Amino acid sequence: DHLKNHGIQPVLHHKFKNSLHGKIKIPAHTIIFHNHEELKQTADVLLSLGGDGTLLDTLSLIRNSGIPVIGINFGRLGFLASINKGEIESALKALIHGDYTLDERSLLRLESDNNLFGEENFALNDITIHRRDNSAMMIIHASMNGEFINSYWADGLIIATPTGSTAYSLSCGGPIIYPDSESVVITPIAPHNLNVRPVIIPDDNILSFEVEARESKFLVSCDSRTVTVERSVKISIKKADFCVNLIRLNNETYLNTLRNKLLWGIDTRNY
Amino acid sequence: DHLKNHGIQPVLHHKFKNSLHGKIKIPAHTIIFHNHEELKQTADVLLSLGGDGTLLDTLSLIRNSGIPVIGINFGRLGFLASINKGEIESALKALIHGDYTLDERSLLRLESDNNLFGEENFALNDITIHRRDNSAMMIIHASMNGEFINSYWADGLIIATPTGSTAYSLSCGGPIIYPDSESVVITPIAPHNLNVRPVIIPDDNILSFEVEARESKFLVSCDSRTVTVERSVKISIKKADFCVNLIRLNNETYLNTLRNKLLWGIDTRNY
Amino acid sequence: DHLKNHGIQPVLHHKFKNSLHGKIKIPAHTIIFHNHEELKQTADVLLSLGGDGTLLDTLSLIRNSGIPVIGINFGRLGFLASINKGEIESALKALIHGDYTLDERSLLRLESDNNLFGEENFALNDITIHRRDNSAMMIIHASMNGEFINSYWADGLIIATPTGSTAYSLSCGGPIIYPDSESVVITPIAPHNLNVRPVIIPDDNILSFEVEARESKFLVSCDSRTVTVERSVKISIKKADFCVNLIRLNNETYLNTLRNKLLWGIDTRNY
Amino acid sequence: DHLKNHGIQPVLHHKFKNSLHGKIKIPAHTIIFHNHEELKQTADVLLSLGGDGTLLDTLSLIRNSGIPVIGINFGRLGFLASINKGEIESALKALIHGDYTLDERSLLRLESDNNLFGEENFALNDITIHRRDNSAMMIIHASMNGEFINSYWADGLIIATPTGSTAYSLSCGGPIIYPDSESVVITPIAPHNLNVRPVIIPDDNILSFEVEARESKFLVSCDSRTVTVERSVKISIKKADFCVNLIRLNNETYLNTLRNKLLWGIDTRNY
Repeated sequence: DHLKNHGIQPVLHHKFKNSLHGKIKIPAHTIIFHNHEELKQTADVLLSLGGDGTLLDTLSLIRNSGIPVIGINFGRLGFLASINKGEIESALKALIHGDYTLDERSLLRLESDNNLFGEENFALNDITIHRRDNSAMMIIHASMNGEFINSYWADGLIIATPTGSTAYSLSCGGPIIYPDSESVVITPIAPHNLNVRPVIIPDDNILSFEVEARESKFLVSCDSRTVTVERSVKISIKKADFCVNLIRLNNETYLNTLRNKLLWGIDTRNY
Repeated sequence: DHLKNHGIQPVLHHKFKNSLHGKIKIPAHTIIFHNHEELKQTADVLLSLGGDGTLLDTLSLIRNSGIPVIGINFGRLGFLASINKGEIESALKALIHGDYTLDERSLLRLESDNNLFGEENFALNDITIHRRDNSAMMIIHASMNGEFINSYWADGLIIATPTGSTAYSLSCGGPIIYPDSESVVITPIAPHNLNVRPVIIPDDNILSFEVEARESKFLVSCDSRTVTVERSVKISIKKADFCVNLIRLNNETYLNTLRNKLLWGIDTRNY
Repeated sequence: DHLKNHGIQPVLHHKFKNSLHGKIKIPAHTIIFHNHEELKQTADVLLSLGGDGTLLDTLSLIRNSGIPVIGINFGRLGFLASINKGEIESALKALIHGDYTLDERSLLRLESDNNLFGEENFALNDITIHRRDNSAMMIIHASMNGEFINSYWADGLIIATPTGSTAYSLSCGGPIIYPDSESVVITPIAPHNLNVRPVIIPDDNILSFEVEARESKFLVSCDSRTVTVERSVKISIKKADFCVNLIRLNNETYLNTLRNKLLWGIDTRNY
Repeated sequence: DHLKNHGIQPVLHHKFKNSLHGKIKIPAHTIIFHNHEELKQTADVLLSLGGDGTLLDTLSLIRNSGIPVIGINFGRLGFLASINKGEIESALKALIHGDYTLDERSLLRLESDNNLFGEENFALNDITIHRRDNSAMMIIHASMNGEFINSYWADGLIIATPTGSTAYSLSCGGPIIYPDSESVVITPIAPHNLNVRPVIIPDDNILSFEVEARESKFLVSCDSRTVTVERSVKISIKKADFCVNLIRLNNETYLNTLRNKLLWGIDTRNY
C-alpha cells in the first residue's frame, strides 16, 4: 500500500511469487516476470531480499540490462546487501526520492570452448578454479595476454573483481581493492609454493588458465554457480562488457561499509 | 640379489605384487602379505615406494605394530619419503648396517559416535573437517577438554601433528612445528573471521568439534582417507596411543630436509 | 583501610611512592622497598598497576623470587594485566580468599659475551633482534643446538614464549601458543625471503644467532628493555631456570581472555 | 673506448668521479655533472651502477627530467636494477641500437606543512611512516580524500606504488601489483589489529595521515631517505605529476623478472 501511494508498480519473479503464496498478501496489480527479458521491460529497480548470495543470484536476471539493484539484507553477511532489516522503510523512501547514487561495478566474463555457463558466464565477485572433493592438489598454469605468469600448485585459484576482493579472496589472504580500481586480483587457495602472493593486474588484460592434475575433472565457479569441467578444458577470463549498477544510499559510503563489516575500529582497546 | 646376499627376506603386499607382475622379477623366496596382521609377523622394516601420500597409506598396514618405515621418493614432494631415487642403493646399505635413527612421530586419533574410519581412525599428518564441493561456508564450533575455543566460519579446519605442520596446514598459513614438540596446531581453511590465527596446543588435550551449516553433510579426512558425514555428527580428536617409527638415515636431519624442501637458503640474492 | 581490616600490609616501591606523593594518601604502616632483595623479603603478592608493559617491567623486581604477580589494567591492552579497573575490589577479595590459581609461565634467558642485560637478561614475552632505524635489512643466521636452521633476510627476528605469542609475534604473523606448550616460536619481522614461516621448537633447545649487515650495530630487546649491540656480538637464547607465577582468578580462563582480547566471536554476522 | 667508437659522451656525477679516482681510467672527454640541472642538460640516459637502492638514489638527480635510467646490478637484489654484471656489454649494445622500451613508472609525492624532504619529496617505491627505535607502537589515522579509512595500531604503515609493491610492502604481506595498474597499496607494518588487511586504491586519490603516540616523534621515509618528524605533523600523499622512465631491454618482461626474482617456478618438486 505504501508503494501504491507513491505510484510504484511492484514486479515479482514467478518463482518467488510461488514461495510467498499464502505468506504475505501480494498486491493485486503486481506484475509477475519470468526471465531476464520480461524483467528488462517492466522493472526500474530490482530489490534483492536476502544476503549477498541472493543479490549475486539476481545477476542472472539483470545481466546487461543496466537495471539498478539494491540488497535488503536478511542474511548474516551483507557487503552487497547493505540495507539492514530495520532500515527498509527509510531505504525505500530514499529510493523513491532519488536520494541515492549508482555504483557501477565491473564484472568478469568467462570464456571456454564448450561455453560452460551459457549466457550466465559472468561474475560480480569472482571466478574460481578448484580441485574437486577428495582429489589431490592441482597445478594451474596461468598466463596474461599469452605470457606465462606462474604455475600454481594449490587447491585452486580465485580471480576476483574489486567487489569480490572482500569475499572469498579476502579469506584466502587477498587484499581489499577499492571498487573503482579497474583491477582484478589473482589469489591462490592453499598454495603449496610458499613464495607465491596475490597479484593485482589491470582489468583490461586477458587471463588464461590450463590445469594439470591427476584427477580428470575440476570445478569452475562464476560467483555461486559451479560446474564440473574436464581437465583438458582451457578457460580464459576478461572484463565483461557491461556493469552492474548497485544502488548506494547517500548516507552510505564504501569505506563505512568496509569498517562496519570487517569490524575495523571496533577494538576493545578503544574502551 | 643384493638383498639375498645380505640375508634379507623381501616381503611384499599382495596388491603390489599383482601390479608389479611382469614388470620386474620378483625374487622366488619373497613372502607375500595381505594385511596388517601378516605384515606384523613377517617384516622388520617397511619400504614405501612412492611419495608422501604413499607413505601415509602404508600406515593402514603398519598401525600400532611399531614396524619402522622408510620412504623412497618416486613422487615430487618428499618430506616423509626423503630418500631420492638416486640414493636408493646407499640408503639400503645404511639400513643394513644399522646406520640410522628411529624418529618416533606422534599420530592423531579420531573418535565419533559411528566410528567413521573403523580401525584406521588415525592420522600421521592431519585430520581435516571440510565443507563439500559447491556448498557454502560452514561454522565449526571447537572446544578443548570441553571448554569453548572459538567458532570458525570457514571452508574447514585442519588439526595437524608436527609431522603434518609442513603439509596442508602450512599451505593454509600454519607454522612449522619441530617434530618432538608434543603439540598440535589448529589451522582454519579460508576463514571468514579475519582475526583468527593458527593455535598451538599441547598434544595431551582432547579437542572436540560440532558443525553448523546449511548443507546437511560435510567431509572428514584422516590423512588422505575421506568420508562424508552427517552434519549432526560430533567428532573428537586426541593423540593416538601409538607412534610411527620413521627411519632417518644418519646423514639426514630434520632441519636439513626442511631447508631443502622449502627451498630455504636457495635465494637468488646469494648469487 | 580495606586492606588493614584484612590484616594486609602494603608494600610499595620507593620510586612509585615518590610519584604518588600528594596524590593519594599512603597508609602510614606501608613498607617501602627499593629493589629485588627487599621485595623478596617483604611481599607475598605483587600488584602491577598499569598495562601489560607495566607488568613486564615488574619482572625486574620479581625475578626468580617466585612472588606471584597480578596485573590491574589501567592501560588499553590487557593480556597479562587482565583485571579491569571496574573489577579491582572483587579481584582483591578473590585474592584475599585465595580464590585464584597460579599460572606458571616460562621465561627466556639471553646469553652473550658481554652480558648485555646484566642480571635482567630474561623475558616473559619475547627476545627480539632488530635492525636500527634507517639501517638496511639485516641477515640473521639462526642455529639450534649448533645446527643451522636458516638465514633470515629481514628487519629482525622475534623469539617468543607462549605468553609472548599473543604479543609482537602475533602482529608479525606468528601463531597463538597455549601457555603450557613448552615451546618457543621464531617469527621473522618483515622477511625478504618469501618462503620462510614461523617455526615452533620445544623450549629445551638452545638457539644461537649471528648477524650479518652493512650497519655496524643492531638492537636486542628483552621484553621492553632494549640495548644497542655491535654487529659481531653473538647471542644465544634458552629457557630461563625460573618461572613467573601469574595470578589468575578462578573465574578467568586463558581461552576466555584470548577470545575477549582478540575479539573472537564478536562478529557482526552473529547479530 | 667502446663508448667513444659509438659516438657516446660519458657523463659522470662529481662525487662518483672522486670515488673512482685512481681505480679505473676515466675517459678524458667525460663530462662531470654536479646536480639535477646539469644532468638534465647533458645526459640522454643515466646508468645506475649498484643495486635497487642505488637506482632509487639516482631519482634525486633525475627528478622530473624524463631522462631514462637503467640499472646495472652490482648488488644482491635487482628488481629495478635488472641487468646483471655478466650482461653489461650486451645491454649496452641493445641500448645503443635502441632495442629497448621505456617503462613509465608512477611516483608518489609527499606533502606536509614543513616540507619535510624539500624538492626530493617523491618516491618510486614507497613512502613509509614508522615508529622510532625503542618506542612503543603508534596509532596512524588514515583518510582518503578527507574520508576516514581506518586507525592502524602498528609499527608503521607503507604506502607503495606498483613498483614498490615487490619491495618492503611485499615483506609485510602486501600483494604484487602489476606496474601499469594505476593503484597504490596501503600495507600496515606489524599491525596489532588482527583484522586489517592491505588496501588497494586508485592512484588519483589523496591520502592523509595523522599520528597518535606516546612518543613525541616518528619517522617518515621517501624510498631510502628518512627524516624524524614531530608527532603533530600531518602528511598527505598523492601521485607525483611526473614519471620515471625505466629502460627495459626488449628481451626482458616484468613477469619474467618477477618469476626470477621471487623464485617462482623454481620448485624442487619440478625435479
